[in-house]
Amino acid sequence: MNTSPKVPIPTLERLATYLRYLLDLEASFVDTISSTEVEKQTGINAAQFRKDLSYFGEFGKPGVGYNVIDLQSRIAKILRVDHDQPVLVFGAGNLGSALVGYPGLAEQHFKVVGVFDQNPRKIGQKLFQIEITDIARMKEVNSVLQARIGIIAVPAHAAQLVADSAALAGVNALLNFAPIILKVSDRVVVRNVSFIQELAVMSYQLALDPVK
Amino acid sequence: MNTSPKVPIPTLERLATYLRYLLDLEASFVDTISSTEVEKQTGINAAQFRKDLSYFGEFGKPGVGYNVIDLQSRIAKILRVDHDQPVLVFGAGNLGSALVGYPGLAEQHFKVVGVFDQNPRKIGQKLFQIEITDIARMKEVNSVLQARIGIIAVPAHAAQLVADSAALAGVNALLNFAPIILKVSDRVVVRNVSFIQELAVMSYQLALDPVK
Repeated sequence: MNTSPKVPIPTLERLATYLRYLLDLEASFVDTISSTEVEKQTGINAAQFRKDLSYFGEFGKPGVGYNVIDLQSRIAKILRVDHDQPVLVFGAGNLGSALVGYPGLAEQHFKVVGVFDQNPRKIGQKLFQIEITDIARMKEVNSVLQARIGIIAVPAHAAQLVADSAALAGVNALLNFAPIILKVSDRVVVRNVSFIQELAVMSYQLALDPVK
Repeated sequence: MNTSPKVPIPTLERLATYLRYLLDLEASFVDTISSTEVEKQTGINAAQFRKDLSYFGEFGKPGVGYNVIDLQSRIAKILRVDHDQPVLVFGAGNLGSALVGYPGLAEQHFKVVGVFDQNPRKIGQKLFQIEITDIARMKEVNSVLQARIGIIAVPAHAAQLVADSAALAGVNALLNFAPIILKVSDRVVVRNVSFIQELAVMSYQLALDPVK
Protein backbone atom coordinates (compact mmCIF):
# COMPACT_ATOMS: atom_id res chain seq x y z
CA MET A 1 0.00 0.00 0.00
CA ASN A 2 1.16 3.46 -0.81
CA THR A 3 2.02 5.33 2.39
CA SER A 4 3.85 8.64 2.40
CA PRO A 5 7.58 8.02 2.61
CA LYS A 6 7.87 11.09 4.79
CA VAL A 7 5.84 10.00 7.78
CA PRO A 8 6.94 6.80 9.52
CA ILE A 9 4.25 4.55 11.01
CA PRO A 10 5.64 4.96 14.56
CA THR A 11 5.11 8.72 14.18
CA LEU A 12 1.47 8.10 13.25
CA GLU A 13 1.09 5.81 16.25
CA ARG A 14 2.51 8.47 18.52
CA LEU A 15 0.25 11.12 16.98
CA ALA A 16 -2.69 8.93 17.93
CA THR A 17 -1.30 8.77 21.47
CA TYR A 18 -0.90 12.56 21.64
CA LEU A 19 -4.46 12.93 20.43
CA ARG A 20 -5.75 10.65 23.15
CA TYR A 21 -3.81 12.62 25.74
CA LEU A 22 -4.99 15.97 24.35
CA LEU A 23 -8.62 14.85 24.46
CA ASP A 24 -8.12 14.03 28.15
CA LEU A 25 -6.57 17.45 28.73
CA GLU A 26 -9.37 19.19 26.90
CA ALA A 27 -11.91 17.36 29.05
CA SER A 28 -9.98 18.61 32.10
CA PHE A 29 -10.07 22.20 30.77
CA VAL A 30 -6.29 22.48 30.42
CA ASP A 31 -5.44 25.31 27.99
CA THR A 32 -1.75 25.00 27.20
CA ILE A 33 0.94 22.34 27.47
CA SER A 34 4.69 22.13 26.97
CA SER A 35 6.58 19.30 25.27
CA THR A 36 8.09 18.51 28.69
CA GLU A 37 4.61 17.92 30.08
CA VAL A 38 3.80 15.72 27.11
CA GLU A 39 6.90 13.67 27.92
CA LYS A 40 5.95 13.40 31.59
CA GLN A 41 2.41 12.23 30.82
CA THR A 42 2.87 10.02 27.77
CA GLY A 43 6.38 8.71 28.36
CA ILE A 44 7.32 9.94 24.87
CA ASN A 45 10.48 12.04 24.75
CA ALA A 46 9.89 15.82 24.32
CA ALA A 47 12.29 16.01 21.37
CA GLN A 48 10.50 13.09 19.72
CA PHE A 49 7.19 14.87 20.20
CA ARG A 50 8.51 18.01 18.51
CA LYS A 51 10.01 15.95 15.71
CA ASP A 52 6.76 14.06 15.15
CA LEU A 53 4.86 17.33 14.81
CA SER A 54 7.50 18.82 12.51
CA TYR A 55 6.34 16.52 9.69
CA PHE A 56 3.14 18.54 9.54
CA GLY A 57 4.23 22.16 9.87
CA GLU A 58 4.60 24.66 12.67
CA PHE A 59 3.03 23.96 16.06
CA GLY A 60 3.17 25.79 19.37
CA LYS A 61 4.81 29.02 20.44
CA PRO A 62 8.31 29.25 21.93
CA GLY A 63 8.09 30.01 25.65
CA VAL A 64 4.31 29.57 25.62
CA GLY A 65 3.77 25.97 24.54
CA TYR A 66 0.95 24.33 22.67
CA ASN A 67 -2.68 25.32 22.75
CA VAL A 68 -4.52 22.11 23.67
CA ILE A 69 -7.64 22.65 21.57
CA ASP A 70 -5.68 23.82 18.54
CA LEU A 71 -3.18 20.95 18.69
CA GLN A 72 -5.96 18.42 19.26
CA SER A 73 -7.93 19.62 16.27
CA ARG A 74 -4.88 19.75 14.01
CA ILE A 75 -3.79 16.21 14.90
CA ALA A 76 -7.37 14.99 14.45
CA LYS A 77 -7.34 16.56 11.01
CA ILE A 78 -3.97 14.98 10.12
CA LEU A 79 -5.24 11.53 11.13
CA ARG A 80 -8.60 12.20 9.41
CA VAL A 81 -10.51 11.52 12.59
CA ASP A 82 -12.10 14.98 12.50
CA HIS A 83 -15.08 13.79 10.46
CA ASP A 84 -17.32 10.73 10.48
CA GLN A 85 -15.99 7.64 8.75
CA PRO A 86 -18.20 4.60 8.16
CA VAL A 87 -16.97 1.35 9.71
CA LEU A 88 -18.19 -2.24 9.36
CA VAL A 89 -18.00 -4.78 12.17
CA PHE A 90 -17.62 -8.42 11.20
CA GLY A 91 -18.89 -10.81 13.86
CA ALA A 92 -21.83 -10.16 16.18
CA GLY A 93 -20.58 -12.31 19.04
CA ASN A 94 -19.45 -11.02 22.44
CA LEU A 95 -16.55 -9.03 21.10
CA GLY A 96 -18.34 -7.64 18.03
CA SER A 97 -21.32 -6.59 20.12
CA ALA A 98 -19.07 -4.87 22.62
CA LEU A 99 -17.35 -2.99 19.83
CA VAL A 100 -20.61 -1.84 18.26
CA GLY A 101 -21.65 -0.47 21.65
CA TYR A 102 -18.28 1.06 22.48
CA PRO A 103 -18.59 4.85 22.80
CA GLY A 104 -14.87 5.39 22.13
CA LEU A 105 -15.41 4.65 18.44
CA ALA A 106 -17.94 7.41 17.87
CA GLU A 107 -15.82 9.81 19.93
CA GLN A 108 -13.16 9.58 17.24
CA HIS A 109 -15.76 9.70 14.46
CA PHE A 110 -15.63 6.01 13.60
CA LYS A 111 -19.26 5.35 12.89
CA VAL A 112 -20.39 1.73 12.81
CA VAL A 113 -22.83 1.52 9.90
CA GLY A 114 -22.97 -2.24 9.35
CA VAL A 115 -22.67 -5.43 11.40
CA PHE A 116 -22.28 -8.80 9.74
CA ASP A 117 -22.53 -12.38 10.94
CA GLN A 118 -23.12 -15.76 9.39
CA ASN A 119 -25.28 -17.17 12.18
CA PRO A 120 -28.91 -17.41 10.91
CA ARG A 121 -30.19 -16.84 14.44
CA LYS A 122 -28.40 -13.48 14.58
CA ILE A 123 -29.09 -12.24 11.05
CA GLY A 124 -32.01 -9.79 11.07
CA GLN A 125 -31.68 -9.00 14.77
CA LYS A 126 -30.59 -5.57 15.90
CA LEU A 127 -27.49 -4.54 17.77
CA PHE A 128 -27.65 -0.96 19.06
CA GLN A 129 -30.10 0.01 16.26
CA ILE A 130 -28.03 -1.67 13.56
CA GLU A 131 -29.47 -4.71 11.84
CA ILE A 132 -27.17 -7.71 11.67
CA THR A 133 -26.70 -8.67 8.03
CA ASP A 134 -25.68 -11.97 6.48
CA ILE A 135 -21.95 -11.82 5.91
CA ALA A 136 -22.53 -13.30 2.42
CA ARG A 137 -24.25 -10.03 1.49
CA MET A 138 -21.28 -7.86 2.48
CA LYS A 139 -20.31 -6.74 -1.01
CA GLU A 140 -23.86 -5.88 -2.03
CA VAL A 141 -24.56 -3.99 1.21
CA ASN A 142 -21.25 -2.14 1.19
CA SER A 143 -21.83 -0.93 -2.35
CA VAL A 144 -24.36 1.34 -0.60
CA LEU A 145 -22.61 1.90 2.75
CA GLN A 146 -19.23 2.60 1.09
CA ALA A 147 -17.23 1.78 4.21
CA ARG A 148 -13.50 1.32 3.71
CA ILE A 149 -12.67 0.37 7.30
CA GLY A 150 -13.67 -2.95 8.84
CA ILE A 151 -13.20 -4.55 12.25
CA ILE A 152 -12.73 -8.31 12.34
CA ALA A 153 -14.27 -9.77 15.48
CA VAL A 154 -14.94 -13.32 14.31
CA PRO A 155 -13.21 -16.47 15.62
CA ALA A 156 -9.73 -17.23 14.27
CA HIS A 157 -10.88 -19.96 11.89
CA ALA A 158 -13.29 -17.60 10.10
CA ALA A 159 -11.09 -14.50 9.97
CA GLN A 160 -9.21 -15.14 6.71
CA LEU A 161 -12.43 -15.73 4.79
CA VAL A 162 -13.89 -12.54 6.21
CA ALA A 163 -10.76 -10.60 5.25
CA ASP A 164 -11.01 -11.95 1.70
CA SER A 165 -14.70 -10.98 1.43
CA ALA A 166 -13.98 -7.57 2.92
CA ALA A 167 -11.32 -6.84 0.32
CA LEU A 168 -13.77 -7.81 -2.44
CA ALA A 169 -16.33 -5.47 -0.88
CA GLY A 170 -13.93 -2.53 -1.03
CA VAL A 171 -12.95 -2.57 2.64
CA ASN A 172 -9.23 -1.84 2.47
CA ALA A 173 -8.37 -1.22 6.10
CA LEU A 174 -8.87 -4.05 8.55
CA LEU A 175 -8.53 -3.94 12.29
CA ASN A 176 -8.06 -7.58 13.21
CA PHE A 177 -8.98 -8.89 16.66
CA ALA A 178 -8.73 -12.55 15.61
CA PRO A 179 -5.55 -14.30 16.79
CA ILE A 180 -4.28 -15.17 13.34
CA ILE A 181 -1.98 -13.53 10.84
CA LEU A 182 -4.10 -12.49 7.89
CA LYS A 183 -2.86 -12.77 4.34
CA VAL A 184 -3.97 -9.78 2.30
CA SER A 185 -2.98 -8.07 -0.92
CA ASP A 186 -0.85 -4.94 -0.77
CA ARG A 187 -3.96 -2.90 -1.46
CA VAL A 188 -5.21 -3.74 2.03
CA VAL A 189 -3.76 -2.52 5.30
CA VAL A 190 -4.16 -4.66 8.41
CA ARG A 191 -3.47 -3.74 12.00
CA ASN A 192 -3.76 -6.36 14.68
CA VAL A 193 -5.16 -5.90 18.14
CA SER A 194 -3.36 -8.59 20.04
CA PHE A 195 -4.31 -8.21 23.64
CA ILE A 196 -3.55 -11.84 24.37
CA GLN A 197 -0.01 -11.14 23.16
CA GLU A 198 0.14 -8.07 25.39
CA LEU A 199 -0.83 -10.28 28.32
CA ALA A 200 1.87 -12.79 27.38
CA VAL A 201 4.52 -10.06 27.41
CA MET A 202 3.38 -8.94 30.86
CA SER A 203 3.30 -12.54 32.01
CA TYR A 204 7.01 -12.80 31.19
CA GLN A 205 7.76 -9.49 32.89
CA LEU A 206 5.91 -10.50 36.06
CA ALA A 207 7.77 -13.78 36.27
CA LEU A 208 11.08 -11.87 36.32
CA ASP A 209 10.03 -10.03 39.42
CA PRO A 210 8.71 -12.55 41.92
CA VAL A 211 8.98 -10.16 44.89
CA LYS A 212 5.97 -8.19 43.72
CA MET B 1 10.08 -2.70 37.12
CA ASN B 2 12.93 -5.12 36.91
CA THR B 3 13.02 -6.70 33.47
CA SER B 4 15.92 -8.79 32.27
CA PRO B 5 18.40 -6.56 30.45
CA LYS B 6 19.03 -9.42 28.06
CA VAL B 7 15.63 -9.71 26.42
CA PRO B 8 14.24 -6.58 24.76
CA ILE B 9 10.49 -5.96 24.90
CA PRO B 10 10.16 -6.11 21.08
CA THR B 11 11.62 -9.62 21.22
CA LEU B 12 8.95 -10.62 23.74
CA GLU B 13 6.28 -9.09 21.52
CA ARG B 14 7.57 -11.06 18.56
CA LEU B 15 7.72 -14.26 20.63
CA ALA B 16 4.03 -13.78 21.36
CA THR B 17 3.44 -13.39 17.61
CA TYR B 18 5.40 -16.58 16.84
CA LEU B 19 3.37 -18.39 19.47
CA ARG B 20 0.11 -17.29 17.90
CA TYR B 21 1.35 -18.42 14.50
CA LEU B 22 2.58 -21.76 15.86
CA LEU B 23 -0.77 -22.44 17.51
CA ASP B 24 -2.42 -21.88 14.11
CA LEU B 25 0.06 -24.28 12.50
CA GLU B 26 -0.47 -26.88 15.18
CA ALA B 27 -4.24 -26.67 14.60
CA SER B 28 -3.55 -27.24 10.89
CA PHE B 29 -1.40 -30.31 11.69
CA VAL B 30 1.80 -28.78 10.31
CA ASP B 31 4.84 -30.62 11.77
CA THR B 32 7.89 -28.58 10.84
CA ILE B 33 8.63 -25.03 9.71
CA SER B 34 11.63 -23.09 8.48
CA SER B 35 12.58 -19.55 9.47
CA THR B 36 11.86 -18.54 5.85
CA GLU B 37 8.28 -19.75 6.25
CA VAL B 38 8.00 -17.84 9.50
CA GLU B 39 9.10 -14.71 7.65
CA LYS B 40 6.59 -15.32 4.87
CA GLN B 41 3.68 -15.81 7.24
CA THR B 42 4.39 -13.32 10.00
CA GLY B 43 6.28 -10.65 8.08
CA ILE B 44 9.10 -10.88 10.61
CA ASN B 45 12.54 -11.30 9.05
CA ALA B 46 13.99 -14.84 9.25
CA ALA B 47 17.26 -13.58 10.77
CA GLN B 48 15.29 -11.65 13.39
CA PHE B 49 13.32 -14.78 14.23
CA ARG B 50 16.52 -16.76 14.77
CA LYS B 51 18.00 -13.96 16.85
CA ASP B 52 14.90 -13.70 19.01
CA LEU B 53 15.04 -17.41 19.77
CA SER B 54 18.79 -17.27 20.45
CA TYR B 55 18.12 -15.47 23.75
CA PHE B 56 16.63 -18.68 25.05
CA GLY B 57 18.96 -21.43 23.85
CA GLU B 58 19.12 -23.80 20.91
CA PHE B 59 16.09 -24.27 18.69
CA GLY B 60 15.53 -26.18 15.47
CA LYS B 61 17.79 -28.41 13.42
CA PRO B 62 19.92 -27.19 10.50
CA GLY B 63 18.43 -28.39 7.21
CA VAL B 64 15.32 -29.69 8.97
CA GLY B 65 13.75 -26.64 10.60
CA TYR B 66 11.70 -26.26 13.72
CA ASN B 67 9.32 -28.79 15.15
CA VAL B 68 6.03 -26.90 15.54
CA ILE B 69 4.82 -28.54 18.74
CA ASP B 70 8.22 -28.35 20.42
CA LEU B 71 8.76 -24.69 19.50
CA GLN B 72 5.22 -23.78 20.52
CA SER B 73 5.58 -25.40 23.92
CA ARG B 74 9.01 -23.88 24.55
CA ILE B 75 7.84 -20.37 23.69
CA ALA B 76 4.73 -20.85 25.83
CA LYS B 77 7.02 -21.83 28.70
CA ILE B 78 9.30 -18.82 28.15
CA LEU B 79 6.30 -16.46 28.24
CA ARG B 80 4.78 -18.37 31.17
CA VAL B 81 1.57 -19.00 29.29
CA ASP B 82 1.96 -22.77 29.70
CA HIS B 83 0.04 -22.83 32.97
CA ASP B 84 -3.10 -21.15 34.30
CA GLN B 85 -2.70 -17.62 35.60
CA PRO B 86 -5.51 -15.87 37.47
CA VAL B 87 -6.73 -12.60 35.93
CA LEU B 88 -9.14 -9.96 37.19
CA VAL B 89 -11.41 -7.94 34.91
CA PHE B 90 -12.33 -4.42 36.01
CA GLY B 91 -15.57 -3.20 34.50
CA ALA B 92 -18.60 -5.37 33.71
CA GLY B 93 -19.89 -3.23 30.83
CA ASN B 94 -19.96 -4.24 27.18
CA LEU B 95 -16.21 -4.54 26.83
CA GLY B 96 -15.59 -6.23 30.21
CA SER B 97 -18.36 -8.74 29.56
CA ALA B 98 -16.97 -9.54 26.13
CA LEU B 99 -13.53 -10.11 27.62
CA VAL B 100 -14.83 -12.41 30.35
CA GLY B 101 -16.52 -14.50 27.67
CA TYR B 102 -13.60 -14.41 25.24
CA PRO B 103 -12.29 -17.94 24.67
CA GLY B 104 -8.87 -16.67 23.52
CA LEU B 105 -7.96 -15.81 27.12
CA ALA B 106 -8.40 -19.34 28.45
CA GLU B 107 -6.61 -20.76 25.40
CA GLN B 108 -3.45 -19.03 26.60
CA HIS B 109 -4.15 -19.98 30.20
CA PHE B 110 -5.33 -16.57 31.32
CA LYS B 111 -8.13 -17.56 33.68
CA VAL B 112 -10.59 -14.85 34.66
CA VAL B 113 -11.25 -15.43 38.36
CA GLY B 114 -12.82 -12.12 39.34
CA VAL B 115 -14.95 -9.38 37.77
CA PHE B 116 -15.42 -6.04 39.45
CA ASP B 117 -17.77 -3.12 38.90
CA GLN B 118 -19.07 -0.22 40.94
CA ASN B 119 -22.62 -0.28 39.60
CA PRO B 120 -24.94 -1.55 42.39
CA ARG B 121 -27.27 -3.03 39.77
CA LYS B 122 -24.45 -5.21 38.46
CA ILE B 123 -22.83 -6.22 41.74
CA GLY B 124 -23.97 -9.71 42.76
CA GLN B 125 -25.03 -10.68 39.24
CA LYS B 126 -23.14 -13.36 37.36
CA LEU B 127 -21.13 -13.09 34.19
CA PHE B 128 -20.20 -16.46 32.69
CA GLN B 129 -20.40 -18.12 36.15
CA ILE B 130 -18.34 -15.39 37.83
CA GLU B 131 -20.06 -13.16 40.35
CA ILE B 132 -19.57 -9.43 39.80
CA THR B 133 -18.00 -7.96 42.92
CA ASP B 134 -18.02 -4.41 44.24
CA ILE B 135 -14.81 -2.78 43.06
CA ALA B 136 -14.37 -1.34 46.56
CA ARG B 137 -13.79 -4.90 47.79
CA MET B 138 -10.98 -5.60 45.32
CA LYS B 139 -8.14 -5.75 47.84
CA GLU B 140 -10.03 -8.00 50.24
CA VAL B 141 -11.19 -10.36 47.47
CA ASN B 142 -7.80 -10.50 45.80
CA SER B 143 -6.10 -11.45 49.05
CA VAL B 144 -7.81 -14.79 48.38
CA LEU B 145 -7.71 -14.87 44.56
CA GLN B 146 -4.05 -13.77 44.42
CA ALA B 147 -4.28 -12.49 40.84
CA ARG B 148 -1.39 -10.32 39.68
CA ILE B 149 -2.78 -9.52 36.25
CA GLY B 150 -5.75 -7.22 35.71
CA ILE B 151 -7.63 -5.97 32.67
CA ILE B 152 -9.02 -2.45 32.82
CA ALA B 153 -12.27 -2.22 30.88
CA VAL B 154 -13.87 0.76 32.63
CA PRO B 155 -14.53 4.17 31.05
CA ALA B 156 -11.59 6.57 30.78
CA HIS B 157 -12.66 8.75 33.72
CA ALA B 158 -12.65 5.76 36.10
CA ALA B 159 -9.50 4.04 34.88
CA GLN B 160 -6.88 5.83 37.01
CA LEU B 161 -8.77 5.10 40.22
CA VAL B 162 -9.09 1.45 39.24
CA ALA B 163 -5.36 1.27 38.46
CA ASP B 164 -4.57 2.75 41.88
CA SER B 165 -6.86 0.25 43.65
CA ALA B 166 -5.43 -2.61 41.61
CA ALA B 167 -1.87 -1.75 42.65
CA LEU B 168 -2.96 -1.69 46.30
CA ALA B 169 -4.58 -5.10 45.81
CA GLY B 170 -1.32 -6.59 44.51
CA VAL B 171 -2.25 -6.51 40.83
CA ASN B 172 1.03 -5.46 39.22
CA ALA B 173 0.35 -6.03 35.55
CA LEU B 174 -2.41 -4.03 33.93
CA LEU B 175 -3.78 -4.41 30.45
CA ASN B 176 -5.47 -1.08 29.85
CA PHE B 177 -8.32 -0.73 27.36
CA ALA B 178 -9.30 2.74 28.60
CA PRO B 179 -8.19 5.57 26.32
CA ILE B 180 -6.06 7.33 28.91
CA ILE B 181 -2.42 7.20 29.89
CA LEU B 182 -2.26 5.66 33.35
CA LYS B 183 0.16 6.88 35.99
CA VAL B 184 1.56 3.96 37.93
CA SER B 185 4.55 3.27 40.16
CA ASP B 186 7.54 1.45 38.70
CA ARG B 187 6.38 -1.68 40.50
CA VAL B 188 3.48 -1.90 38.06
CA VAL B 189 3.67 -2.72 34.36
CA VAL B 190 1.02 -1.36 32.02
CA ARG B 191 0.34 -2.26 28.43
CA ASN B 192 -2.26 -0.38 26.47
CA VAL B 193 -4.70 -1.82 23.99
CA SER B 194 -5.39 1.14 21.80
CA PHE B 195 -7.58 -0.04 19.00
CA ILE B 196 -8.98 3.43 18.43
CA GLN B 197 -5.40 4.55 17.83
CA GLU B 198 -4.89 1.66 15.43
CA LEU B 199 -7.96 2.82 13.53
CA ALA B 200 -6.60 6.38 13.45
CA VAL B 201 -3.32 5.17 11.92
CA MET B 202 -5.25 3.26 9.24
CA SER B 203 -7.46 6.27 8.66
CA TYR B 204 -4.35 8.29 7.76
CA GLN B 205 -3.04 5.50 5.54
CA LEU B 206 -6.34 5.19 3.66
CA ALA B 207 -6.48 8.90 3.01
CA LEU B 208 -3.09 8.71 1.28
CA ASP B 209 -4.47 6.25 -1.19
CA PRO B 210 -7.76 7.58 -2.49
CA VAL B 211 -7.83 5.27 -5.51
CA LYS B 212 -8.68 2.26 -3.39
